Amino acid sequence: MPTLRDVIAARPRVYRYLKPTPLYRYSGLSTLIGANVWVKHENHLPVGAFKVRGGLNLVAQLDDKERASGLFTASTGNHGQSNAYAARAHGVRATIAVPEGANPGKVAAMRGLGAEVEFHGPDFDSAREWVMAMAAAQGGRFVGPTEERLIHGVGTYALEIVEVLPEVDAIIVPVGAGSGVCATGIVAKTINPAIQVIGVQSAQAPAVQMSWACGKLVSADMNTAAEGLATRVPFENTQRIMRQYLDDFVLVDDAAIEDAVVLLLEHTHNLAEGAGAAALAAAIKLKPRLAGKNVVLVLSGGNLSMDQLRRVVGRSGSSAGAR
Amino acid sequence: MPTLRDVIAARPRVYRYLKPTPLYRYSGLSTLIGANVWVKHENHLPVGAFKVRGGLNLVAQLDDKERASGLFTASTGNHGQSNAYAARAHGVRATIAVPEGANPGKVAAMRGLGAEVEFHGPDFDSAREWVMAMAAAQGGRFVGPTEERLIHGVGTYALEIVEVLPEVDAIIVPVGAGSGVCATGIVAKTINPAIQVIGVQSAQAPAVQMSWACGKLVSADMNTAAEGLATRVPFENTQRIMRQYLDDFVLVDDAAIEDAVVLLLEHTHNLAEGAGAAALAAAIKLKPRLAGKNVVLVLSGGNLSMDQLRRVVGRSGSSAGAR
Repeated sequence: MPTLRDVIAARPRVYRYLKPTPLYRYSGLSTLIGANVWVKHENHLPVGAFKVRGGLNLVAQLDDKERASGLFTASTGNHGQSNAYAARAHGVRATIAVPEGANPGKVAAMRGLGAEVEFHGPDFDSAREWVMAMAAAQGGRFVGPTEERLIHGVGTYALEIVEVLPEVDAIIVPVGAGSGVCATGIVAKTINPAIQVIGVQSAQAPAVQMSWACGKLVSADMNTAAEGLATRVPFENTQRIMRQYLDDFVLVDDAAIEDAVVLLLEHTHNLAEGAGAAALAAAIKLKPRLAGKNVVLVLSGGNLSMDQLRRVVGRSGSSAGAR
Repeated sequence: MPTLRDVIAARPRVYRYLKPTPLYRYSGLSTLIGANVWVKHENHLPVGAFKVRGGLNLVAQLDDKERASGLFTASTGNHGQSNAYAARAHGVRATIAVPEGANPGKVAAMRGLGAEVEFHGPDFDSAREWVMAMAAAQGGRFVGPTEERLIHGVGTYALEIVEVLPEVDAIIVPVGAGSGVCATGIVAKTINPAIQVIGVQSAQAPAVQMSWACGKLVSADMNTAAEGLATRVPFENTQRIMRQYLDDFVLVDDAAIEDAVVLLLEHTHNLAEGAGAAALAAAIKLKPRLAGKNVVLVLSGGNLSMDQLRRVVGRSGSSAGAR
């Protein structure tokens, strides 16, 4: 199981290519929640999401054979962009499989980072199976979504939080596959077990939360518009860490997530993708419990598409004045 | 006249409270312009705009009498928030005059930063006259919009650009009162006279550009929606610096600025206010001249209101797919 020591060891590999992100207190959000509300701006990273920290830590540790044969992964989102960024930084070839019909904006972003993007199959699982076979055939390195070295790298943001705001009472973290919340739990709880670490997922894709709640792996429907939270099948390794380190794990509706995207635009002038806004939606739900506390919301990523933004902003048009 | 040495001396006063901002290259924007396009993310600063650097440098140098009597300024925007932030950081009282009917969101932001906000008069000039009289009566420190110490502090972003990207060919800077573009000119040209420094203002508020172009102070109509570019009367001190250091100064229409806000959302997932997007609008206009060069766009601020965002995003709805 990953430890704080692994996260500390990852820091030079991560900070060779990026800087710590800001942690800002917002008075408007603090008034809204009735707490001291801080936002951890992982959206300010290159590629706009926390995952790039994990990619940089993993790629830095590839051996010569892996470097030569390149890395292979499947993703339509931030995982793919993060691995593409890290591979380019280290001069390693990256092949990223996406399903046919994948979001052209994200495909362009991955190609812009120098990755070879291969369309394969009707859905994410077929793309992943294809690229795993390809990696095996070429002796390349397949990168799974919850590898420990990704968790070690991602943990550097949690360490930044605890170092800048040692008086933090609660950290709320969006959960997709779980690397962010696991890393946060390991770092925060090891340094100060009194810090509450709270996960959040969409009620429209609750597999990871349900698995955590009932203590065994269960699948669930996946209908959320927040792709960063969209996990159909939970992962054993992150579940084990979550069971040890999480204080709570809440579900919020997609509609509450969309409201939170608008509130973040309004109060922080930052664009959050659905996953990135989920922590605020959770804080609104947990308001009574958070009263007066120092609360950090992890804005895990900012990669909202223009179509998503138009829908969210249009939807909020009539009610926003009343907020 | 401010010098590079003044900017270097300002650094410890600025970096005591904030970190250098990222300078990221975006492949989508690079393709669009046909150049290597980098964005300087001043929107990632506290209060969301470059001006906070100037406020921090100025407030750090107040004498004991000024500290005790507090600072006084007039602003409906980023200047006010920046001075409020800097005053709070240094434990100094800030009084900010705004006209009646000022944007409630910005008033709330200034109050959230601990400033006393006083509504006075129907427009900005009456608010400013009132607060200058107030400062004089109380022996307080009035802070004007283009004071040299503001320029010294603001210059720290330009130094960050030249240090991170010494091969920069051109820096495009939005111009309001002119502190940003003056600081950029002083820093960039002193270090490397070959760097092109280009200002941009809205064609719907061209007073500063016209004054630069004809070599004397002239006023002009002011109808731009980009409040950060809205200057009706030019300032003598910044004009003098601009005449010495600017290579070019272009005007772009408000409609082109709104398109640029959308392009920045799409390609960088960052919210820019009109002024913050103006550099991209200028790059689109200057495309042939910039071909193949290393171009930095200063995203000077991100404080777009929700009403402005709704209008811009709605307007772009039908055409964005074609981009």
